[in-house]
Amino acid sequence: MAARSNLIVGQSGGPTAVINATLAGIIETAAQSESVGEIIGMRHGVQGLLKEDLLDLRRQPPEVLLRLRDTPSAALGSSRMNVTDEDLTRMVEILRAHDVHHFLYIGGEGSANVVHRLGHIVRDVRYELRAVAVPKTIDNDLVETDHCPGYPSVARWLAVAVREAGLDTEAIGVVDTVKVIETMGRDTGWIAAGTALAREREGEAPHLIYLPERAFDQDRMLADVSRVHRELGHVVVVVSEGLKDSRGTYLSASERAVDRDPVGRPQLGGTAQAVCDIIALRLGLKARFDKPGTIQRVSSIMASPVDRDEAYRAGVAGVKAAGDGQTDVMVAIKRQAGREYRSTMTLVPLGQVVGRVRTVPPDYIADTGNDVTPKFVSYLAPLLGGMLPSYPRLADARVPRKLTTN
Amino acid sequence: MAARSNLIVGQSGGPTAVINATLAGIIETAAQSESVGEIIGMRHGVQGLLKEDLLDLRRQPPEVLLRLRDTPSAALGSSRMNVTDEDLTRMVEILRAHDVHHFLYIGGEGSANVVHRLGHIVRDVRYELRAVAVPKTIDNDLVETDHCPGYPSVARWLAVAVREAGLDTEAIGVVDTVKVIETMGRDTGWIAAGTALAREREGEAPHLIYLPERAFDQDRMLADVSRVHRELGHVVVVVSEGLKDSRGTYLSASERAVDRDPVGRPQLGGTAQAVCDIIALRLGLKARFDKPGTIQRVSSIMASPVDRDEAYRAGVAGVKAAGDGQTDVMVAIKRQAGREYRSTMTLVPLGQVVGRVRTVPPDYIADTGNDVTPKFVSYLAPLLGGMLPSYPRLADARVPRKLTTN
Repeated sequence: MAARSNLIVGQSGGPTAVINATLAGIIETAAQSESVGEIIGMRHGVQGLLKEDLLDLRRQPPEVLLRLRDTPSAALGSSRMNVTDEDLTRMVEILRAHDVHHFLYIGGEGSANVVHRLGHIVRDVRYELRAVAVPKTIDNDLVETDHCPGYPSVARWLAVAVREAGLDTEAIGVVDTVKVIETMGRDTGWIAAGTALAREREGEAPHLIYLPERAFDQDRMLADVSRVHRELGHVVVVVSEGLKDSRGTYLSASERAVDRDPVGRPQLGGTAQAVCDIIALRLGLKARFDKPGTIQRVSSIMASPVDRDEAYRAGVAGVKAAGDGQTDVMVAIKRQAGREYRSTMTLVPLGQVVGRVRTVPPDYIADTGNDVTPKFVSYLAPLLGGMLPSYPRLADARVPRKLTTN
Repeated sequence: MAARSNLIVGQSGGPTAVINATLAGIIETAAQSESVGEIIGMRHGVQGLLKEDLLDLRRQPPEVLLRLRDTPSAALGSSRMNVTDEDLTRMVEILRAHDVHHFLYIGGEGSANVVHRLGHIVRDVRYELRAVAVPKTIDNDLVETDHCPGYPSVARWLAVAVREAGLDTEAIGVVDTVKVIETMGRDTGWIAAGTALAREREGEAPHLIYLPERAFDQDRMLADVSRVHRELGHVVVVVSEGLKDSRGTYLSASERAVDRDPVGRPQLGGTAQAVCDIIALRLGLKARFDKPGTIQRVSSIMASPVDRDEAYRAGVAGVKAAGDGQTDVMVAIKRQAGREYRSTMTLVPLGQVVGRVRTVPPDYIADTGNDVTPKFVSYLAPLLGGMLPSYPRLADARVPRKLTTN
C-alpha cells in the first residue's frame, strides 16, 4: 500500500436532503488528508463501480463543491441492486486496478451489507481494503446509531407540512372533513411518528398517527376518527405507507412484478387511498389524502441544520476511520448526555448492524396505538434544529348575536 | 347610512398561502379608515354569517394581526356552500341587524357569484350594501384579472418541489424510472403548467406536462414517456388532477356521493395512480407517484413575495372600493407594461366575471400537447418573485477505465 492511498465513495438507496452533505464531508476531508491520493466517485453506487463508471472528484470546480453541502438528492447518482458474490469479486478487481484501498459507501442497511461482504471477501483474496459504511436513511431504521442522517430532515419537512395541512383542514373541515396524509417508511413508523412534531397546542394536527409497528385495526381506526370528528369537526390522520393488518398483509402494495425493487420488495403507496375509502364507506365522511412521496425526502430548504451538520460530520468520520485503518465498520451517531443536544461520531462493527432493523420501540408508541409518546417527542425534537414556523389563531372575540340564539 | 359604516369580511373556498395576507390588508386598511366603524369577520364565510357566527376584528391582539400576513390557511375559517335565494335574503337581514354596509368576500368564482347575487338582491329590498369580491384561487381561473392571488405561491412551491423531485429521479432513476406528480387544478391546467418553472437547464424535470385543456390520449402519453426514457433513462411526468379523455370523462373522479362537494362536483385525485398503472402495464416501467395535495397550496415558507404583496394590496383595494361607493365589483390585478414586473389593482364588474372560467389559452400550450410554451413561462416567471434554489451538478470529469471498454 502506497503512502497515499486512493479513496472511492458511492451513494446508495433513496436520495435525501443531506446525503450530499456527507459526500461533501468526505471529499473535503479526503482532499486535506496527506494519506489520500485520488478521490474517486462511483456513478450510481456499486452499479457504476461494476461498469468502471467513475468520476474524478479532485477535478471538481470549487464552486460545485462549495454548494454540494446544500444540494438535495444524490449528486453521484444512486442505485439499489442485488449484489452477488460474483459482483463482489469483480468489484475487488476494479478496486485493485485503480489501486483503491479506502472504500466509503453512504447508505442504509442494504448498503452496509455490501460493505460488510466486501470487507470479508478482500480478506480471502488478501487485498487490503478499508471498507467503511456511512449511514444515510430517512427510514431511521439502522441499529447501533442514535438516529440516521436524513431522518431529521424528512421529519422536519413533514412537521411543517402537517402543521400547515392541519391549519388548512381546520379552516375547510366543514367541507373536506378528513385529511389522510401518507408518509414514507417501509416497515418502520419513524417517519409517520415524526409528524407528531407538527403540534404546537392541544387539539392540533395530526390527531391520529398509525405506525406499522402495530397491526392496523380498521374498526379501531374508525372509532378513533369518529371520536375526533365529534370533538373537533375535522380530522387529520397520518398513516405510514407500510401499514399491515393483523395477518401481516400490507394495506396497499403493488402486486405487479415490475414494481418490485431489485431486492424483491413490492412497491408501497396507496395506503392513504385505502384508508380514505374505508372512512368514506363506513363513516360517510368526506376524506381526501395527501401523499407527498419523494418530495418529503429531498427538500433542501426545510432540511434540519442539525441533520446537515451531522451528515457532513459522518462523512468526515468515515474518511478518518479509513485513514486510521478501520474496516468493516459503520459510522454511528452517539447522543451526548446533558440538556443541550450534542452528538459525537463513533464506529460500530458492521456485524452488529447488518440484517437488523430498528423498529420504533414500544415506549415511543402510545398504548392506544394511534399516537406516539412524549418520550418519542423528546427524542426527536432536538434533531429538527428548531425554527419551525409558528402560526397564530385569531382570538375568539365574538360579535354578540342580534337575531339568533344558541 | 351612518358616517361610519360597519364592514364585514369573509374567506371562502380552498385556503391558500396568502389569503390571510388579503385579510390583513383589509383589517389594517379598514382600521385606518375614517369611514369604517366595526370590522366584523364571518367564521367559515357565509356559512358563519347565516348563523351569526361573527368575530370582532377590532378586538384582535396586535401581535396576531402582525403575523397574520405570513400565516397560511384561512384564519377566519373557510367554506364552500350552495347558497340559495333564501340564504341571501337571510344574509341581508343579518347584515341589516348589524348595520353592515361594506361586504368583502375573498374567494374564487363561486364566491364572486355570491357577492354578485347579494349585490342584486339588496337593490330589490332597498338596502344599501357595497358588495366587493376580492380574488383568491390557486386555480388561477378567474377571468378579467392577470392572475389570481394564491396561484403564484402554489406555482412557486411546485417549481421547487418538482425541481427537487427531478434531481431525486435523476439520481435513482436506474431503479425508480418514472415519477408521476399530480397537481391540483380542477378543470384548468394553470397549476400543472406552472411546474415548467422547475427547469433551469435542458433535459430537466418536468419532462412532460399534461393539462386538462387537451383531451388525454393514452397512446400519445405512452409514446412520449418511451421517448424520454430512451433519451434520459428516467422520466418525470406532471399530470393535472382534472385530466379528461376525449369523451370528457375524468381519468379519476370519485363516484361516491359523499365525495361530492356542496356544489355537486365530484372529488378528483387519483389521476397519477391511473397514469402509473398505464405506464407499468403497457411499458413495463416502474412508475411511482407523488400527490402533494393540499400541502402544495398552503406552504407559507415557499410563498411568492410578489403574491403575498399583491394579496395584501388586493385587500386594501377592496376596502377602498367599498369606501368609494363601488358595488358588484371584483378587485383585479393589472400587469403594467415594461421590463420590470409591476402591477396595479383595478375593479371589474362582477357581471363580467361570474359564470366564466379562464382556461390556459392555446398559445400557452405546446402543439405537442405535452408541455407549455415559452410565452407561458414569460407570463408566470415574474410572479414567483425569484429566489428559487439553484442546484449544481458534479462536473463529468471521468476517471479513465482500466479494465473495461465502452
